[in-house]
Amino acid sequence: MNGQILERSVVLASGGLDSTVTAAIARRDGYALHLLTVAYQQRHAVEVERSRQVATALKADQHVVIDVDLRAIGGSALTGDMSVPKHRTEFERNRDVPVTYVPGRNLVFLSLAAAHAEVLNASIIYFGANVIDYSGYPDCRQEFIQAVEATLQVGTKAGMQGKGIEIRAPLLRMTKAEIIKLGLTLNVPFHLTHSCYDPIGSIACGQCDSCLIRKRGFEEAGVVDPIQYAVC
Amino acid sequence: MNGQILERSVVLASGGLDSTVTAAIARRDGYALHLLTVAYQQRHAVEVERSRQVATALKADQHVVIDVDLRAIGGSALTGDMSVPKHRTEFERNRDVPVTYVPGRNLVFLSLAAAHAEVLNASIIYFGANVIDYSGYPDCRQEFIQAVEATLQVGTKAGMQGKGIEIRAPLLRMTKAEIIKLGLTLNVPFHLTHSCYDPIGSIACGQCDSCLIRKRGFEEAGVVDPIQYAVC
Repeated sequence: MNGQILERSVVLASGGLDSTVTAAIARRDGYALHLLTVAYQQRHAVEVERSRQVATALKADQHVVIDVDLRAIGGSALTGDMSVPKHRTEFERNRDVPVTYVPGRNLVFLSLAAAHAEVLNASIIYFGANVIDYSGYPDCRQEFIQAVEATLQVGTKAGMQGKGIEIRAPLLRMTKAEIIKLGLTLNVPFHLTHSCYDPIGSIACGQCDSCLIRKRGFEEAGVVDPIQYAVC
Repeated sequence: MNGQILERSVVLASGGLDSTVTAAIARRDGYALHLLTVAYQQRHAVEVERSRQVATALKADQHVVIDVDLRAIGGSALTGDMSVPKHRTEFERNRDVPVTYVPGRNLVFLSLAAAHAEVLNASIIYFGANVIDYSGYPDCRQEFIQAVEATLQVGTKAGMQGKGIEIRAPLLRMTKAEIIKLGLTLNVPFHLTHSCYDPIGSIACGQCDSCLIRKRGFEEAGVVDPIQYAVC
């Protein structure tokens, strides 16, 4: 980049497929990458380790991991004692808010990203939300993202000074196959990404909603998924 | 209460004066008290210990302490390396956003409170924000609170199901003296509350913005402040 100073972006990076493609998009768009990972005591904590590997692979300018103990609140299969459902159909996944929904999670994540953006004087947050695969999650929808942007406009120092913080969710309406194809063109290190809600060690279970969606995405994209699954 | 099951409220309880009066108001209003304290690696971590004492004194139905490491982000005198300003005049305090403003803090707090409310099936959050003493903090203003309520309406399971989450900030436009007088009528244990940004051990410094505001409030209310100060 010829020593040019790039504008900073904060990227919410979970170590998953979508957020890694999102980080690659932020780089393509010409921003410096300040990755932010929230370690929320999730069942699939291997994500956090993968986020570190992704940050290294993408040569991120900074990677901050914040600990937030959402297990203290519970209310989700990802942080509490409920079990993660397996082998559900698309119809079942979209019927209602799934037990893998973590109350308030994306708002907590975006709040932390906004705080980080304020400190860095960054005016953009990249957020890998997707409404196609997660239509049952209220906090993956466009109207939610717009409401958070409006909140940041009135509730941050940056907003008070007339400089808003944009939340860019480039994957919002893309199918998993489209996301994967785009990721390929951006050399996303898919082999490092982790999607499974209920891994055995670091191996994806192959049966939870997130594994099923990922596997079908690779199939539809006509590409081999480079990660290992316990059950294919 | 004759074994009657009360509706639940989540109260953001910092261990400070305002949030303790707010909790007493929630009790007066007839709600069960679910106190939520965020331990954010603040300089004045004695607050967290005081919040436990306050919860016991108020006979809270539940008290959850969540760890969120805001120091990883920094950007504030309360979580970073900047020093806490002392002996500032009211004019200086209100001139601009002070260095004790913690970026994103109240949004993070309200997000966690909303998550907790969803899990508890509570539809009200009590929040001790005050715009009179903290006019320089963007996230203590009415428009911020309304924007968060709108966000919860679209971004939570409760909201999707047509059941919003109200954020009640009963102290918003009260002076400190008014808050103290109200607290007296509600038997608030002021001796347990901690307000100082920069305590020496657990003793209030007496010189930071928060101490100055508290001391003047007690003076104006004509009541003796029961806590100790390093400098009177």
